[in-house]
Amino acid sequence: MEPGSSGAAPGGVSVSAVLPAGGSGERLGGATPKQFCAVQGRPLVSYAVRAMERISWISDVIVVVSPENIETMKTIIEKYGHKKVTVVEGGITRHRSIFNGLKVFAENEFSSHLLQKPEVVIIHDAVRPFVEEDIVSKVVMAAKEHGAAGAIRPLVSTVIAAAADGCLDHSLERARYRASEMPQAFLFDIIYGAYQQCTDYDLDYGTECLHLALKYCKTNAKLVEGTADLWKVTYKRDLYAAESIIKDNLSQQVCVITNVKETLAQVGFLLPESLKSQIKVEAISVSLSKNDSHLQNIISGQCYNFVCVNDKRCAIQEVQELVSMLEKSNISLLYPVVLISVHLDVSENNSFSTGMEDLTAIKKFARETKKKNILVYGLLIQYK
Amino acid sequence: MEPGSSGAAPGGVSVSAVLPAGGSGERLGGATPKQFCAVQGRPLVSYAVRAMERISWISDVIVVVSPENIETMKTIIEKYGHKKVTVVEGGITRHRSIFNGLKVFAENEFSSHLLQKPEVVIIHDAVRPFVEEDIVSKVVMAAKEHGAAGAIRPLVSTVIAAAADGCLDHSLERARYRASEMPQAFLFDIIYGAYQQCTDYDLDYGTECLHLALKYCKTNAKLVEGTADLWKVTYKRDLYAAESIIKDNLSQQVCVITNVKETLAQVGFLLPESLKSQIKVEAISVSLSKNDSHLQNIISGQCYNFVCVNDKRCAIQEVQELVSMLEKSNISLLYPVVLISVHLDVSENNSFSTGMEDLTAIKKFARETKKKNILVYGLLIQYK
Repeated sequence: MEPGSSGAAPGGVSVSAVLPAGGSGERLGGATPKQFCAVQGRPLVSYAVRAMERISWISDVIVVVSPENIETMKTIIEKYGHKKVTVVEGGITRHRSIFNGLKVFAENEFSSHLLQKPEVVIIHDAVRPFVEEDIVSKVVMAAKEHGAAGAIRPLVSTVIAAAADGCLDHSLERARYRASEMPQAFLFDIIYGAYQQCTDYDLDYGTECLHLALKYCKTNAKLVEGTADLWKVTYKRDLYAAESIIKDNLSQQVCVITNVKETLAQVGFLLPESLKSQIKVEAISVSLSKNDSHLQNIISGQCYNFVCVNDKRCAIQEVQELVSMLEKSNISLLYPVVLISVHLDVSENNSFSTGMEDLTAIKKFARETKKKNILVYGLLIQYK
Repeated sequence: MEPGSSGAAPGGVSVSAVLPAGGSGERLGGATPKQFCAVQGRPLVSYAVRAMERISWISDVIVVVSPENIETMKTIIEKYGHKKVTVVEGGITRHRSIFNGLKVFAENEFSSHLLQKPEVVIIHDAVRPFVEEDIVSKVVMAAKEHGAAGAIRPLVSTVIAAAADGCLDHSLERARYRASEMPQAFLFDIIYGAYQQCTDYDLDYGTECLHLALKYCKTNAKLVEGTADLWKVTYKRDLYAAESIIKDNLSQQVCVITNVKETLAQVGFLLPESLKSQIKVEAISVSLSKNDSHLQNIISGQCYNFVCVNDKRCAIQEVQELVSMLEKSNISLLYPVVLISVHLDVSENNSFSTGMEDLTAIKKFARETKKKNILVYGLLIQYK
């Protein structure tokens, strides 16, 4: 499935998501709960929310936080322009928080913001920032068919059982077991039904939603092999790892856009050729005044770097079109977008002063777009 | 136990270590096996070897590598000055490699480098760079008493069993289980006996040494709670995490050394006071010409930053004494050591030119020490 290419949910079901974000982050060894720790200046929870929010067929994202963090969460939502989010007060354990999140779709208790009950509900963690649409889609499809589904990963270490004396009782055969990761998804009625039947012991000491669906609704969840990036940020070192992954992603792709004239198409061919040993390059020839679906897909696929080559008299119009598309896509909410406008002036009577006027106009425009996290640079190439 | 303060093994036993380093690093997604990936310019395996080597009561460190990496490993040993290491050719699985490593202490097959059989053998991974003496010591003590012992950690994710149809069969109660980590230690005769009785199936598909000791020697290993840093570098993100931990450690501690004159002692008090909100500071007043055991302990504890305040006519002698101690300790093999010599000239008739002579001498000396990874800087403060 092309990311962001479709507004329809997998299997045509209605889908919403609940993100428990009430943890205290003890294992991180810091005072700030890990979901609020900043990675590249932005709180972890905001990445996870954004990952859900950018999937067009997810209607609502419920973030469940402990009472003392409600204001913090609201500030994050405002600052990063999250649109689909409802903040709900959590309970003292993970299961109680998820249950509170689900109630928003079902009960009068939270009637002030009662939301449309989805057929399938995704449960994801606020501390897993890198979930891709592909795995979310697979888990939702499997949940529709089986009632419950969850991402899994191979075990990294052997799992052992300890006896009461602190000695080894037995070790598990690694190949038979898997680590249960997120996202998980459920038919809403199944997981909500399971939570309604839960004992206090389950709510206080349990952690595994798949287990509740099995125990109370006899639903054996479908297990879906996930990617390595689904891991949970648990320790301080995981914050470093997350930061490095984000930095890597930022510079992984560049889109070279030319309009369709012959000279330009040639430049638009040579530039990607020389770049492609360094970076993933998408090169397209397109008129920016038309709403091109290929370009839309590239933007939705979270490309943050653009080189826009043109030879029009008014280069700035092309840039403005592209900036307008980028603004609508909201991608610059997450990271800065870099846009280099290369104006190729091949006219017989080109002059330095007209070129400079163009650059001055771009500079002025760039000052405005910078506020929206879009960094525009102009480059003028004149030759006869 | 003070790091490096004692040459005696815990419990008075003889101890050696085997590091299997034959893995292919598939999960890292790169061509280079992870144990040979560079972190801060140095291969991961070298950190693990160094961690073992700097424990004075470990006699030999056997590194087991696949045939094609023997030369690479020998180059690493030479480049980083590892002293206690013997390289052994590994088998096609982890267990076969460990078995080969153990044979060096016991069999004629490797008689060209037959080593003294230890009472306790440590098994550690080449991809766990951060093991501290404290946990190694605990595991060795427990192995001496129980015959086998291993470090464990709480599970990060719930562990689940999959049925043949790819659906959830059951999930394990997280509190009852632990992740088996490294280091592990064994009475040599127990683990070697276990390997000698192993089936080919064990050698080809097993991964857990504690399991072998239990299965073949009825030895229930003692489980020792380890620190979070014991984790295994498995994915690319773990390399980033390791790098960040190393960078953090480098700048965590500074030692301020003054000789015992009154003025200096005062500076030596004020400087740490103003630094201590930023960094862990050890301040000591000591004459560097004497072999001070407190300073030795600080160096063995892997302090990499030194400020040496003195008012002697020949500041450089003090610096030379310290450099000589640092060289003997070998700590600069791992990371660069920074040494700032602050010469406080409070004499009535101090002159700029004599001060400059001192600095020139330090500069010349610094050029030499830089080759040994010790970076010396001079600072001259004159006042009347």
